[in-house]
Amino acid sequence: MTTQVLENLQFRLAARPVGMVKDSDWQQVVEPVRALADGEILVKVLYLSLDPAMRGWMNDAKSYIRPVAIGEVMRAGGIGVVVESRSAKFAVGDHLSGGTGVQQYWVGAADDKSASFIKVDPALAPLTTYMNTLGMPGMTAYFGLLESGQPKAGETVVVSGAAGAVGQTVGQVAKQLGCRVVGIAGGKEKCDFVVKELGFDACIDYKQGSVRDGLKEYCPQGVDVYFDNVGGEILDTVLTRINLRARIVICGAISQYNNTTPVKGPANYLSLLVNRARMEGIVVFDYADRYHLGVAALGKWLQSGAIKSKEDIVQGIENFPAALNMLFEGKNFGKLVLQVARA
Amino acid sequence: MTTQVLENLQFRLAARPVGMVKDSDWQQVVEPVRALADGEILVKVLYLSLDPAMRGWMNDAKSYIRPVAIGEVMRAGGIGVVVESRSAKFAVGDHLSGGTGVQQYWVGAADDKSASFIKVDPALAPLTTYMNTLGMPGMTAYFGLLESGQPKAGETVVVSGAAGAVGQTVGQVAKQLGCRVVGIAGGKEKCDFVVKELGFDACIDYKQGSVRDGLKEYCPQGVDVYFDNVGGEILDTVLTRINLRARIVICGAISQYNNTTPVKGPANYLSLLVNRARMEGIVVFDYADRYHLGVAALGKWLQSGAIKSKEDIVQGIENFPAALNMLFEGKNFGKLVLQVARA
Repeated sequence: MTTQVLENLQFRLAARPVGMVKDSDWQQVVEPVRALADGEILVKVLYLSLDPAMRGWMNDAKSYIRPVAIGEVMRAGGIGVVVESRSAKFAVGDHLSGGTGVQQYWVGAADDKSASFIKVDPALAPLTTYMNTLGMPGMTAYFGLLESGQPKAGETVVVSGAAGAVGQTVGQVAKQLGCRVVGIAGGKEKCDFVVKELGFDACIDYKQGSVRDGLKEYCPQGVDVYFDNVGGEILDTVLTRINLRARIVICGAISQYNNTTPVKGPANYLSLLVNRARMEGIVVFDYADRYHLGVAALGKWLQSGAIKSKEDIVQGIENFPAALNMLFEGKNFGKLVLQVARA
Repeated sequence: MTTQVLENLQFRLAARPVGMVKDSDWQQVVEPVRALADGEILVKVLYLSLDPAMRGWMNDAKSYIRPVAIGEVMRAGGIGVVVESRSAKFAVGDHLSGGTGVQQYWVGAADDKSASFIKVDPALAPLTTYMNTLGMPGMTAYFGLLESGQPKAGETVVVSGAAGAVGQTVGQVAKQLGCRVVGIAGGKEKCDFVVKELGFDACIDYKQGSVRDGLKEYCPQGVDVYFDNVGGEILDTVLTRINLRARIVICGAISQYNNTTPVKGPANYLSLLVNRARMEGIVVFDYADRYHLGVAALGKWLQSGAIKSKEDIVQGIENFPAALNMLFEGKNFGKLVLQVARA
């Protein structure tokens, strides 16, 4: 049993952001960690997952999950280690993945629904992999691509945010399925990485030259599946290059999340009509009852070296506000993770 | 064999229209009907089908069908009667449905691919029904709704252009399937018609009050299927009211066809993500090998009086330019047909 009083630094939502999130939208609070009740555990947070979806949770809008309330600890997925336990479910030393929130310590019932902790094994994969390929981004990529994208061998799959958490796995899984894979990413370094390290067939640098020309060059047979993480102009451009019965998977629209003007709708959406194509939204939670299948498939590929998991790790919980904004500035290179503590 | 020389008034495309079609975009030509060669037939056109899709065929853009060339007779579906035949396929007196073009007489091979004539029986249904419920609009409605919309009994189906050719059949078929059906149409007369005559549960008059309020009132359980014929603001508004796993069928976007500015993309398309919903384009030709099944199903409902076919018949081929524009001014009430001759 821990006897020292632990201090818990938390980031709470202070105001609903307009456009990019400002420091003043956050309130930093330091609280003493309270004593545990029966059935509760104390988790020391080691890593936090920083995700584009977090920006949406800060808005007061109807969505697939309730907004974070003003004054509430910011919602985030995390990985931590149990440092105290009054529950039979988890023991001290267990590594857990779940909804820890942006804080140093999590206290509550071991079976808390909103945290939904599951055990992860640091001997099987680095802990950060559980936030990436073996976590939500990996599940999003795996099930979104397979269920909504339905790629077939020989087809051309295009993915935006190709070096990002979801995009990297989408492209690598599509390669495993025998597809031609073309990424879209910002900057030469990211593009080189997805081609040379992850095995994509090509990658279009949207900061350098036109996406339209890149699609013409690298997708000579047109686009059968487009996995969209960014929305905006890139979605509109890909719509001009889709094939008959193409499938567009709407996973996100990071280019639009900080808009202060209305979202840019895809002006070329009538390409769906001309091509009898489909655009479908996905949310990873829908596949929760089959995550174990996704983890098994991706885990096998990771172990054999067929696919890789690339994380971008920023140090220190105090850097949370700046780190989160890296996502919207295109500054992260791989799945963005905030390291809060060392085991 | 016809011995008199027949004169054939044709409307040819003179210029590619910018925005609404102007009279100067058409060239009226009167040609003598030429003598038939072996295997050919002469068809006297009785009715022409006027369809929103015709506007798209006038643009020089890649689509599901090649554009009408400058100087070419305007493409149109029609119904006519064979007045001379040198083919065993069709006899004088046969009524045919096919691609006659906007002219008084059609001459060519009985098995001409672009005309694709099929026989219709005026004893089974009024000839104009073959251009509506038993023709392309009916097939578009039937297969588009069933295959892409996939409505289930008890679900709410919303259809725009509800009094139009496709919309009227979409709504009536959805009622037959046990759905709640809400139309969107312009004007009290159309709205009253689809509710009182066609049996829709409700109809929102977009010219009178807000579509958003109408959807709230008449779709208290939200929208499961939206069959979109209009695009623009109405599509965007419906997107805010869709249910989890809703299906949006993109059949057309009549509000956008005469745009001189870019098409208005659906700014609320991220509702697809939030609701894991789908937006899919359809083109009727994809179902060609099963038209007979659609005709059989709709024909049975027509005969029993379960559904109705409503046409708006304008007289005289000379009125073709003005009649076509009625579609884009929302002036037609039911499937728009141009009567070219009396049998």
